[in-house]
Amino acid sequence: MDGADSDRKRSGFRSRTAVEKAQKTLREAVSRTVESTRVGLEAADGRVLAEPILAARDVPHYERAAMDGYAVRARDTFGASERSPEVVQVGEGRVDPGTAVRVHTGSEVPGGADAVVMIEHVEALEATGELEVKDAVAEGENVAPAGEDVSEGARLYDPGHRLRPSDLGLLRSVGLEEVAVRERPTVGVIPTGEELVETDPDPGEVIETNGLTVSRMVQRWGGQATYRDIVTDDFDALRVAIERDLTRDVVVTTGGSSVGQRDLLPEVIDDLGEVLVHGVALKPGHPVCLGIVEETPVLALPGYPVACIVNAVQFLRPVLRWLEGTEPESHPTVEARLERKIPSEPGTRTFARVALEDRDGECVAVPTRASGSGVLSSVALADGWVIVEESREGIPEGERVRVENWEA
Amino acid sequence: MDGADSDRKRSGFRSRTAVEKAQKTLREAVSRTVESTRVGLEAADGRVLAEPILAARDVPHYERAAMDGYAVRARDTFGASERSPEVVQVGEGRVDPGTAVRVHTGSEVPGGADAVVMIEHVEALEATGELEVKDAVAEGENVAPAGEDVSEGARLYDPGHRLRPSDLGLLRSVGLEEVAVRERPTVGVIPTGEELVETDPDPGEVIETNGLTVSRMVQRWGGQATYRDIVTDDFDALRVAIERDLTRDVVVTTGGSSVGQRDLLPEVIDDLGEVLVHGVALKPGHPVCLGIVEETPVLALPGYPVACIVNAVQFLRPVLRWLEGTEPESHPTVEARLERKIPSEPGTRTFARVALEDRDGECVAVPTRASGSGVLSSVALADGWVIVEESREGIPEGERVRVENWEA
Repeated sequence: MDGADSDRKRSGFRSRTAVEKAQKTLREAVSRTVESTRVGLEAADGRVLAEPILAARDVPHYERAAMDGYAVRARDTFGASERSPEVVQVGEGRVDPGTAVRVHTGSEVPGGADAVVMIEHVEALEATGELEVKDAVAEGENVAPAGEDVSEGARLYDPGHRLRPSDLGLLRSVGLEEVAVRERPTVGVIPTGEELVETDPDPGEVIETNGLTVSRMVQRWGGQATYRDIVTDDFDALRVAIERDLTRDVVVTTGGSSVGQRDLLPEVIDDLGEVLVHGVALKPGHPVCLGIVEETPVLALPGYPVACIVNAVQFLRPVLRWLEGTEPESHPTVEARLERKIPSEPGTRTFARVALEDRDGECVAVPTRASGSGVLSSVALADGWVIVEESREGIPEGERVRVENWEA
Repeated sequence: MDGADSDRKRSGFRSRTAVEKAQKTLREAVSRTVESTRVGLEAADGRVLAEPILAARDVPHYERAAMDGYAVRARDTFGASERSPEVVQVGEGRVDPGTAVRVHTGSEVPGGADAVVMIEHVEALEATGELEVKDAVAEGENVAPAGEDVSEGARLYDPGHRLRPSDLGLLRSVGLEEVAVRERPTVGVIPTGEELVETDPDPGEVIETNGLTVSRMVQRWGGQATYRDIVTDDFDALRVAIERDLTRDVVVTTGGSSVGQRDLLPEVIDDLGEVLVHGVALKPGHPVCLGIVEETPVLALPGYPVACIVNAVQFLRPVLRWLEGTEPESHPTVEARLERKIPSEPGTRTFARVALEDRDGECVAVPTRASGSGVLSSVALADGWVIVEESREGIPEGERVRVENWEA
């Protein structure tokens, strides 16, 4: 076919794997999860539960007043009204018939009482120690039963749940002080390329940025990145660098993942282990190589900064989730009107950077550049991404699109 | 008026300030920003820029090949085609008329050359050192000019921008190794209430959870929380606790913020400084008290867990943003169909917890409890919040609503 032929000429890839198929292949290869560890509640924020959480007790663990007022026996108030109050004696401790005990919101309802009269509906007669009750209450009124919030034995969370601040409050309220969570997956991030330098580039040299960006993304995604020194395009040097990081849960390289003379990563991965996927039908960033070495996923991301980010989000982020025993959450999205056409080729999933603008109260997505995967500023100055599915040939101007924020 | 009267009776507040007015009052009182500090790029992730960023140089800083191939003078290729190739001599260094030099994507275009012929369109004749060029290129073709990504002097970011991983790559590529960012605002978090205990509650006692939750929210919002020991409902003890934390950028208390006998915080804040707002027209959580002491915002949040969270999100989060010299971002939202009516009173902004469920591909928001601000599990087990504006009386079943995720 002409299409496939010109495709090969252009990219050097005989065929490209669809994004979802590549993800599925990778999913099947990630067979393990990271270890779990018990940590205190503060340290558990943002971590993934490794155990189910059952409530070890009722919350609240006692019957409490839901209002400020007086605990009473409801029947002692029956018939009470503003004009014809019932009178009871103020006491302490237990509520006997004809008596009332002062309670505050949240305090225990004393034995004998079965309701609370709101403070607004009584008048205390200091001289006699009597209390005029001006409104009747029903049994149970203004009383919160034990277990109202959480009943003992209730299943609160399943393993795989990522803990949030409000979860921590609930965990503590059921008596937990620590929980089993997944370790944060460790990731070796290895920037590669003989053109790369740390600073002060000469002509032909490029400052390393992919490793920096990917390392920080790993941290945000709950992993622990080790940002390695630059490795040049040398088979043995690359091999040694990857082997050293096989003690980690994931190895990620940037650059050298395509099919050119200096693209050695696929060959190195093949030598050390297995290449699962080389070349994915996505744009920008098709020359990605996904492999596995001794159970460790090794992801060779392309060196073009935008292609590197697209692939990190599509493949590395899910791997971290799977290692934690959970699934990737969807990204925060906003709806917007597309300001101008996004072109794409059918059969390729296309990721287009857009800036969001408010135009008279309408949210408009403006593609930042028509193309150019090497153009870092188009990502850094964008607000999100619009995805063109494989089945479509571009998205026309004016269509309502969903814009994903990958760095929220 | 009956409404106001019964309102006062119920809540003890003569009047309640509208949420937006309370936020505006607080905004005006937060007159300072935190100091700035210079940090390395890795440490700058998630921090707010305190300076504008201008590109100190072009990126790329040299003219580079956009394709693998040969750098040539375009005119030497004019008329070339598959059938009738133009022949040039392969050289090294400078490209003189009639010569070509091998280049890789991203490498410098040698002096003399003004275009790059793709590797696919040439044939090298090893024996003679000649190169057949089978396609003509125009001047500038496959050459990326210096400054294509970023031009020297371009304003990349304004102060107030919160840095993301992709921003760090761009900053480094323009030669920056550190940037001025705002310090993370420091927050003293003081849980108060004589009923509170750390663990093992007796009847009438409650495990402290608000301070824990608020502390973790502060950390997620970019602040530095100090989670203090519980302070009992004692005027002097509360006064001392707040005074001690006035060295911080914000002081937050939980509990004791209403108008009851044991609600001492408003009085303590009034004694130390100024109460700006006491009582806000929001639900759950109207008994909040916002004050300022010696330029330090002091926020007394209600003790009911849900009310505490609602107020922290409405008032504490913006204060942290203002201190950093920026504005609060909107929360990630999803659209959903409301499964059943959310009731609310006109004039009060109501925050309803909902769980999100997928029903045959449709996203449905299910209110987790009709009411009860003390019910922590309704937050922890919810996925987000639906806001009923003051102008409305509830939201009817079936309406499309926006669900805010406050803990993304």
